[in-house]
Amino acid sequence: MRKRVTPPVRLDIDHLQSLYRSGKLTPRQLLEQLDSYQCAFDDHNIWIHYLSPAEREPFLQALEGKSPDSLPLYGVPFAIKDNIHLKGIPTTVANRHVRIIPEASAFVVDLLLAAGAIPLGKTNLDQFATGLNGTRSDFGPCGNAFDPAWISGGSSAGSAVAVSLGLVSFALGTDTAGSGRVPAALNHIVGLKPTLGRLSVEGVVPACQSLDCVSIFARTAAQADRILNLTDRRNPSDPWQKCRQAPKRLIGQTFRFGVPAAEQLRLVEYPEAQALFNATVEHLKALGGEAVTIDLAPFHEAAALLYDGPWVNERQLAVDALVESRDKVHPVVREVLAVGDNLSASDAFKAQYQLAALKQAADTILASVDTILTPTCPAPYTIAGITYDPVALNARLGVFTNFMNLLDYSAVSVPAGFLENQMPWGVTLFGPAWSDSVMNALAEKLHHRVTNQMGASTDPLPTISTLTPPLTLEIAVCGAHLDGYPLNHQLTERGAVLVKSTQTARRYRFHALAGGPPYRPGLVRSEVTGTAIEVEVWRIPEDRFGTFVAGIPHPLGIGQLELEDGTWCTGFICEPCGIDGATDISNTGGWRRYMADKAATETAS
Amino acid sequence: MRKRVTPPVRLDIDHLQSLYRSGKLTPRQLLEQLDSYQCAFDDHNIWIHYLSPAEREPFLQALEGKSPDSLPLYGVPFAIKDNIHLKGIPTTVANRHVRIIPEASAFVVDLLLAAGAIPLGKTNLDQFATGLNGTRSDFGPCGNAFDPAWISGGSSAGSAVAVSLGLVSFALGTDTAGSGRVPAALNHIVGLKPTLGRLSVEGVVPACQSLDCVSIFARTAAQADRILNLTDRRNPSDPWQKCRQAPKRLIGQTFRFGVPAAEQLRLVEYPEAQALFNATVEHLKALGGEAVTIDLAPFHEAAALLYDGPWVNERQLAVDALVESRDKVHPVVREVLAVGDNLSASDAFKAQYQLAALKQAADTILASVDTILTPTCPAPYTIAGITYDPVALNARLGVFTNFMNLLDYSAVSVPAGFLENQMPWGVTLFGPAWSDSVMNALAEKLHHRVTNQMGASTDPLPTISTLTPPLTLEIAVCGAHLDGYPLNHQLTERGAVLVKSTQTARRYRFHALAGGPPYRPGLVRSEVTGTAIEVEVWRIPEDRFGTFVAGIPHPLGIGQLELEDGTWCTGFICEPCGIDGATDISNTGGWRRYMADKAATETAS
Repeated sequence: MRKRVTPPVRLDIDHLQSLYRSGKLTPRQLLEQLDSYQCAFDDHNIWIHYLSPAEREPFLQALEGKSPDSLPLYGVPFAIKDNIHLKGIPTTVANRHVRIIPEASAFVVDLLLAAGAIPLGKTNLDQFATGLNGTRSDFGPCGNAFDPAWISGGSSAGSAVAVSLGLVSFALGTDTAGSGRVPAALNHIVGLKPTLGRLSVEGVVPACQSLDCVSIFARTAAQADRILNLTDRRNPSDPWQKCRQAPKRLIGQTFRFGVPAAEQLRLVEYPEAQALFNATVEHLKALGGEAVTIDLAPFHEAAALLYDGPWVNERQLAVDALVESRDKVHPVVREVLAVGDNLSASDAFKAQYQLAALKQAADTILASVDTILTPTCPAPYTIAGITYDPVALNARLGVFTNFMNLLDYSAVSVPAGFLENQMPWGVTLFGPAWSDSVMNALAEKLHHRVTNQMGASTDPLPTISTLTPPLTLEIAVCGAHLDGYPLNHQLTERGAVLVKSTQTARRYRFHALAGGPPYRPGLVRSEVTGTAIEVEVWRIPEDRFGTFVAGIPHPLGIGQLELEDGTWCTGFICEPCGIDGATDISNTGGWRRYMADKAATETAS
Repeated sequence: MRKRVTPPVRLDIDHLQSLYRSGKLTPRQLLEQLDSYQCAFDDHNIWIHYLSPAEREPFLQALEGKSPDSLPLYGVPFAIKDNIHLKGIPTTVANRHVRIIPEASAFVVDLLLAAGAIPLGKTNLDQFATGLNGTRSDFGPCGNAFDPAWISGGSSAGSAVAVSLGLVSFALGTDTAGSGRVPAALNHIVGLKPTLGRLSVEGVVPACQSLDCVSIFARTAAQADRILNLTDRRNPSDPWQKCRQAPKRLIGQTFRFGVPAAEQLRLVEYPEAQALFNATVEHLKALGGEAVTIDLAPFHEAAALLYDGPWVNERQLAVDALVESRDKVHPVVREVLAVGDNLSASDAFKAQYQLAALKQAADTILASVDTILTPTCPAPYTIAGITYDPVALNARLGVFTNFMNLLDYSAVSVPAGFLENQMPWGVTLFGPAWSDSVMNALAEKLHHRVTNQMGASTDPLPTISTLTPPLTLEIAVCGAHLDGYPLNHQLTERGAVLVKSTQTARRYRFHALAGGPPYRPGLVRSEVTGTAIEVEVWRIPEDRFGTFVAGIPHPLGIGQLELEDGTWCTGFICEPCGIDGATDISNTGGWRRYMADKAATETAS
């Protein structure tokens, strides 16, 4: 095992806040400790601009007099990729001829500042966010957190390394073609590429405008999800932001995950990567997953469009808006941009048609499973190696990431172990647009099965978290909608998943209604003679709950049920008249027992 | 008034089916009558291919032995624009060098055939669907239904004229830039341009692939809506089809409609057009609308992108796929296509960025109202006039239509009266994507206020229809959610509208629950001692109903209520325990009366 670093403070958000609450640490003290600690990593070229004490003083002052509980990110240090604006601090996009002094911070940065987070600096990147390796910078190649002779991955190079080394709690990157995932994999951390258009890109320097999104590097998927939820706010002046949607489908205690066949993975650089991948497949199976072999061909074909076709022209537009001449561009980036020089508007549309057809094929494959598992990138490279063959090896880094925004999917990269050379390796879980938190929830579980250490540090992973996808609702069912019963499909066909089996508070009577099949129970609240009745809590995308409710026949309905823990949950209720002619079956404790007894009686008779 | 034609049979779908049901007419008899009738219009150049008796025989045979009630479009004649495939019949896109013999009908055509509709033929169009006037055809200029010396409008020229003259019940067109709306306005019929991606375009020859949609010409908006709902089916092999969505917002008994200022309309050709437009504004006010002046500038700017920029390259791709050389293209179309010759892929993306910014501005304006009213086109022109100035006048026809698909809106053109020269003129109502049926519902009401005659015929309009937008639900409320009461906003902020005030069946008891404010009633079904209780039925987009339900506190819930007409409606119910401590207020007959009495008592005391 390569030597791990020991940060001065464990920067998990909850842990940090408990230190602040207890008075054992103040944000000012933390920053002083981080200042000393980060000096040890000068040879990694992490920062393009590390904020001076004076520059960050306003952020510290903004916290003064406030309670650590009053702000969700009180005193949480973070890093910003240097293509995202921080007011008053130069944005360079890693080109020495570019020096924008922003009059305002990016929309997402402002949200983080308002939540109490403290920016430590602007991080190194592949110039103009064009690259996946982290060496294409006028500020020196960014070195891997585990060994600065190895590439950090890019383009969000410094952001990933800073998280991995425990210099910041989380970091913002951008991700057009893999820039938010490849460096996560190569530095043993989590990299979330949210749904395109979910987070506002206002104040982000475009790389390939129609495909750019802000990404999040974090210590765990749960922490990435928390940052996502804090930055996921409507910006009415951003033409690229999309209307928020509920996830199409949730992932339950059992699920199906797509796995490309080994010949489509071609993990040739390090044969042991295939073993790591196979181990991940086993981890997902242990988490309730059923592996399904899928065809990656349409995904790969879509990926190939990104740098061999007109999307390169978007990069030209972005670069040409910043420098007077391409002479001022990093020579490898300049070579990449040249692909677009002779492409016509017709070529642009032709490629968009090809993409539409490929998306239709890829969507069909993705719809057959709950998520797809791939490597994040095939292999790490040394800085010397990538310098020797800068275009081909970089392209190789993107084979599993380039298609993601073109196809409008949501993806998260998670650590998957170490190669024999003890460099980290990662995998990606992806799903349809708006499944970010659904993917994060699974990634969190997978991450904790793979390792108990964070990044390149000796920090332990915090306790595993259960994530709740936004725009979903919980519903308690007690009869024919229970798992395995005749109407359960009304839940599953709407993408619902079982959360838990539990009981109501001891305040209900339970009745077998007259009529049927389908046989139906009626749950009736009774403060005086009530008992606890078995229910199942299911989670359902909120946009599909209305039709479920509208389909429930008289005398049943949907109201609020009190559960055994004293919380209330939306669930099945029964009108008073429903009890006429019904049989009180409260003594059975629930529908499963009642139906089993009934079946036994009928068999016997 | 120009002379109106008298078709042999009034082709409204319901009327036709009642004739079939009564045995007064058979589809075969109808077609014979239409054959004779249509000969009178040879000088209009409506048809590129009118089906021979042999060619249509299979469609008649398919109906044999079937009851008129068994198929929604049993024996309903329709026309197909000649860029939409009908199996075995040549598709020409109005170019004499193109002759595709399709091996399959278009997806939407197949749906119509399966519903029992009978195709009469393939209709004339502006070549390659490029044009808005109907003269750019190798099969002669299509003449207006009111006067063949005047343009029909295009590109779906013959389809609109055939409906207007009463040759068919409805017709399919396509609409990229106004081709489904301009000819509707110029022929005094309804033209629906559904949401882009709603109807499958499989089997439709592309004009400008990313912006093409199938459109519907009909005698009324209600009949257009019916055809829409019959053809709105998922085609998993169509990469351009989008997932169906509920409308964002419904239009109720009161609504706000946007009206551009007169200086943005510039109806210079016929000053009386402004008077027709103003009269339409008054009609909408009489229908409950409040007129709001809006700025049309971002819409006009988006429209300008369509023929002055890279979207022309999509047309090049479509044309070049069909003819070996542009020499074979109509000279005016050739001139239009040349705009794209020197545009680069960068120009294509630049234009897409401009469009994204304009859409954000336009969306903001559209979101401030429920619909926007514009002219469909400024003026009709003679064929001689358009031949003299074929590009500029054509462009003028599109000023109010060109932006619609670029901005992804839903639009319907409705008759708005006649100019002094007795040529018809029309207006367009448009709204956000997926508001097709919402727009149709308002268009139906507007149409019936404007005229009682259909197209160029003496046919009366059928009785007005009330349309129900799909993917919406009805909910009956009886307490604090009633119009004007404290929780009503929970409905309106979800886009819900009041459908009607009514009563329950005489089978309910009504209670004022303990507690509050907000004060809440409990409605309890009682077969024996029940009475009728006042309720309001609201309609709500189905994707937003779930969160409404989840927010209803114990002991209330949502179940099924029986209404006075014996139908059941989703609505508020109450758990048995809710009645504990409640006051029976059934004698008030409803919450309004109860609350008024309560207020009076409190004021008095």
